[in-house]
Amino acid sequence: MTRLRVHTYGMTIDGYVAGPNQTVMDPMGERGQEIHTFLFADEVHPVDQQLFERGTDGIGATIMGRNMFGPVRGEWGDSDWTGWWGPEPPYHHPVFVLTHHAKDPLVVGDTTFHFVTDGIDAALAAATEVAGGLDVRLGGGCATVQQYLRAGLVDELHLAVVPVVLGAGERLFDGIEPALLAGFERTVVSSPGVAHVVFRR
Amino acid sequence: MTRLRVHTYGMTIDGYVAGPNQTVMDPMGERGQEIHTFLFADEVHPVDQQLFERGTDGIGATIMGRNMFGPVRGEWGDSDWTGWWGPEPPYHHPVFVLTHHAKDPLVVGDTTFHFVTDGIDAALAAATEVAGGLDVRLGGGCATVQQYLRAGLVDELHLAVVPVVLGAGERLFDGIEPALLAGFERTVVSSPGVAHVVFRR
Repeated sequence: MTRLRVHTYGMTIDGYVAGPNQTVMDPMGERGQEIHTFLFADEVHPVDQQLFERGTDGIGATIMGRNMFGPVRGEWGDSDWTGWWGPEPPYHHPVFVLTHHAKDPLVVGDTTFHFVTDGIDAALAAATEVAGGLDVRLGGGCATVQQYLRAGLVDELHLAVVPVVLGAGERLFDGIEPALLAGFERTVVSSPGVAHVVFRR
Repeated sequence: MTRLRVHTYGMTIDGYVAGPNQTVMDPMGERGQEIHTFLFADEVHPVDQQLFERGTDGIGATIMGRNMFGPVRGEWGDSDWTGWWGPEPPYHHPVFVLTHHAKDPLVVGDTTFHFVTDGIDAALAAATEVAGGLDVRLGGGCATVQQYLRAGLVDELHLAVVPVVLGAGERLFDGIEPALLAGFERTVVSSPGVAHVVFRR
C-alpha cells in the first residue's frame, strides 16, 4: 500500500513554515531561510541527517505545489524555468507539479517533472502508479500540504520544528481541523537545534 | 542578579498554551489538559522529570496571573478560594498574584500568596526582594507571560512542546515581536513525547 509522506518539513516554534512576502528572490519569504539553516550547517547533526535521509527512503515519486517548483505565475508561456535545483535536481524519480495551467513534461537531469492540472487526487493517483509500490513524498509548500491534510490523504507528517520566532508568514496548521490527525501516532526526537515531531498512521 | 524564568510551559505543536472556552471546571479550556498529560503519566520520562525539576531549582518566589490562582473574577468579596492546590501548595515560597483587586495576603500551608495591584514591574520588584538572591519563576498563564515578554523582563523561557493539535485557544506567541527573543540562546532536548525548547539569555 503506497503511503503519502511529508519529511523534514521545517516549522518555527510559532508555527510558520514560510515567512511573509515571498518573492522570486526570496522564495521562502522574509527570514524564511532561517527555518532550514540546520540543513545547511557545515556539519549537519547526525539526528537531523538521519531523519532527512528518511525523506528519500522508499520514495518512488514526489508531489509539489507550483510555487515550490518555481516563481512563474499564470500561464507558462515560453518560460524556460526548469526548477530551483539546477541541472541535476535531487529527486531522481518523477515529480508531479500541481498547477492550473497545462505544460508538457520537462526532463531535467534524471528527473521528469509532470504538470498536473486536474487536482490533488489525480496527482496522487499518477504518482502512486509511477511509484510502483514505493511511497510518494509530498514536498510542499504550505497550501499543498494543507490540501492533502484536509483530504485525509497524508499518512506521515514529519515536522522539523526550529526554535526560531518569525511572527508572520504561512502557518501550516491554520484551518487544519485537529480531528484530521486524531488517529496518528506521534513521536518526538531532537538534535540540539531541531525538534523532529512525526505524526504517522 | 535575579533572573525571571518560565519553566515547563506546555504548548501544542500548533502553538496553543490553553484551549478555548476556559471555565471554572475546565481551567485550561477545552482539551487544554492534553497539554500537560506527560506530567501526569504513571511514569514521567526522566528527561521530562529532569527539566520539570529545574523549575524549582534556585527559585525563591513565583509570580502568576490571577486566573492561574483561581476562577474568581472581579472583586474578591468574601471568597474563601485558596488556590487550585489544596492545603499544601507546591510552592514553599512566596507567590505574587497579579490582580486589579486588592486582597490581604493568604497563607496556605507554607506558601503565602500576595496580591499585587500595581502591575508587573511592582510584582517583579517585590518577588525579587523576597527571593533574596535566588531567581523568580513566572508561572503563567498566557497573558501574564506575554506581558513580561513584551516588557523584555523574561530571562529564560522553557516551552514543553507536545505533539497535540488543538486548533483553537490561546497562542503564546500571538502579538510577540520576534525581536524580543533575538538575543536569546536556544536549545532543544526531547523525550519521546515532548520537545523541550529553551530560550535563555
